[in-house]
Amino acid sequence: PQRDPPTPTKVQELFVYEINERDRGSPAVLKLSKKEVSALGDLVPFTNKLYSGDLQKRLGVTAGLCVLIQHVPEKKGDRYEAIYSFYFGDYGHISVQGPYLTYEDTYLAVTGGSGIFEGVYGQVKLQQLVFPFKLFYTFYLKGIADLPNELLGTPVEPSPAVEPAPAAKATEPQATIPNFTT
Amino acid sequence: PQRDPPTPTKVQELFVYEINERDRGSPAVLKLSKKEVSALGDLVPFTNKLYSGDLQKRLGVTAGLCVLIQHVPEKKGDRYEAIYSFYFGDYGHISVQGPYLTYEDTYLAVTGGSGIFEGVYGQVKLQQLVFPFKLFYTFYLKGIADLPNELLGTPVEPSPAVEPAPAAKATEPQATIPNFTT
Amino acid sequence: PQRDPPTPTKVQELFVYEINERDRGSPAVLKLSKKEVSALGDLVPFTNKLYSGDLQKRLGVTAGLCVLIQHVPEKKGDRYEAIYSFYFGDYGHISVQGPYLTYEDTYLAVTGGSGIFEGVYGQVKLQQLVFPFKLFYTFYLKGIADLPNELLGTPVEPSPAVEPAPAAKATEPQATIPNFTT
Repeated sequence: PQRDPPTPTKVQELFVYEINERDRGSPAVLKLSKKEVSALGDLVPFTNKLYSGDLQKRLGVTAGLCVLIQHVPEKKGDRYEAIYSFYFGDYGHISVQGPYLTYEDTYLAVTGGSGIFEGVYGQVKLQQLVFPFKLFYTFYLKGIADLPNELLGTPVEPSPAVEPAPAAKATEPQATIPNFTT
Repeated sequence: PQRDPPTPTKVQELFVYEINERDRGSPAVLKLSKKEVSALGDLVPFTNKLYSGDLQKRLGVTAGLCVLIQHVPEKKGDRYEAIYSFYFGDYGHISVQGPYLTYEDTYLAVTGGSGIFEGVYGQVKLQQLVFPFKLFYTFYLKGIADLPNELLGTPVEPSPAVEPAPAAKATEPQATIPNFTT
Repeated sequence: PQRDPPTPTKVQELFVYEINERDRGSPAVLKLSKKEVSALGDLVPFTNKLYSGDLQKRLGVTAGLCVLIQHVPEKKGDRYEAIYSFYFGDYGHISVQGPYLTYEDTYLAVTGGSGIFEGVYGQVKLQQLVFPFKLFYTFYLKGIADLPNELLGTPVEPSPAVEPAPAAKATEPQATIPNFTT
C-alpha cells in the first residue's frame, strides 16, 4: 500500500491587514443585552476588507461573529470571543477562533481552512492599530504546502497610519489576487 | 519510550445529504438587522436531517448557525459564514466552518470531530441542490481510521429530485445507523 | 534542508471544572425564538470560571455561545450546538465545538488553541454535575508538548458537591496560574 507523505510541520508566516473602509455596513452591533454599556448578550457580526501585508494586493474579506463576553472598565475596553474566517479569493480561506480584546494584542487559534489552506493549523497574532478599523495579523501556519509568492511580500511596519496602495484599494487587476473575495 | 503511530494522512471521501423536511422548525431566520433585504446582523440558526450518500440510511442531523455577511444582488443571493456540525449517532460528529453562498458551491474547513472523527481535518464541498432544502456534501477527511462500511455506500448522483429511501425517511431500524441523532 | 520533528500524537488528559458562581451575569439567555419553551432561534452567550481538576487553582474562564437546536421534551432538556473557548491565562486557550445536551454527557471537538495549546487537536468529554452551574471536562489532547505540572493535579472525583479550594476561589496568588484569565 502506498504511504502518504508526512504532514509538513514547518511554520510559515503570513501577514495580512484587515481594514474597515466603512462601506460594508459593518460591524452590525446587536445590543441584545439591552444594557447601556457593553455586556454579555451583545453580538457583533462583521466583515471587513483584507489586504496583503505589503498592502500591494487586495486579497478578500473577513467574515464572522464577535460574541461580547465582558466589559472591562479598568481597561476601558471589552473582551470578545471571535469566530471568523479570512477569505483569499481562489486560494481559499482560513477559519479562526479565540480572544479579541479591544485593549491588547491576542493570539487566536487557526481551526482549519480550504483550498491551499486545507489542513492548516497553528495560531495567529492579532494586533489592533486603530480600533476597530485597522488590524494587523501574523499567521503562524503549519500543515500546508509553501504559500504562493504573491501572499509573501515584505509586510509594511504596522502603524495607525498605514493605508493600502491606491491600486489595491481600487481593486485594479494587477493589485488583486485571482478572484479576490468581495 | 513508546512511539505513537503517525497520524494517517490519506484522504477519505464521505458523501452525505442534508435535507430539510420542514418538520424541525428550521431555519430560524432572525432578522436582527431590521432591514427588509438580507443584511449583516441577520442570524440563521438551523438544523436539518442527515442521510448517507446512497440515501439508504438516516444518519442524524446538522446543527449550527449561519451568520449573514452580505446580500449579493447581482447573484440574487447571499453570503453567509456558516459554523455547524454534522451528527452521526454513536459514530460522533464533525464540525465545520466556512462560506455558504446561496448561489454557488463552496468549500468549508473541517475543524474537528468526536468519536470515530476524533482528530479529523480536511475540507468539505457543499453543493446546493434545492435552496435551502437539499444539499449534497463531499467530505475530504484526513487524520482518522478507515470509515465504517455503512457510511461508504455509492452516492446517488446529486440532483434536485433526490429523495431518501422510504425506510430511511421512516427511520426503520435497518435503515438507520446506531443511535442515529434525532 | 532541516526536517521538523513529527507532531506528537500521544494523548494527554487534562481535567478542568467549569463553575458558574453567578457573579459574571452569565448566561445571557436570548429568547429570540419568541417561544415560551426553548426553541431553535434562542441563543445563549456565556462565560464561567475555570478551575484545575484538583480544584486547587483558578485557571481562567470559559467564553462562547450556545445555539439552541432543539427542545427534547421526553428528556426534559435541550440540545445545543456549543462553540466556545477555555482560557488558561498566560498558557493560552483551547477552542471547542460540538454538542451540549442538558440531559447527558457529550464529547466535543477540540478545534485548535494558542500558546502552549498551539496546534492542539482531539476531543473533550463534558459531564454535567449541576445544571447549568457545574461541569467537569476531560480533555484528550494531541499535537502539543507535555503540559505543565500545575495543570496536571489529580482530579477531584466529579460530584454535584465539589467546590473549588477557598484560596482558588479567592484567587490568592499561590492558587492561580500566571495571569489567570478573569
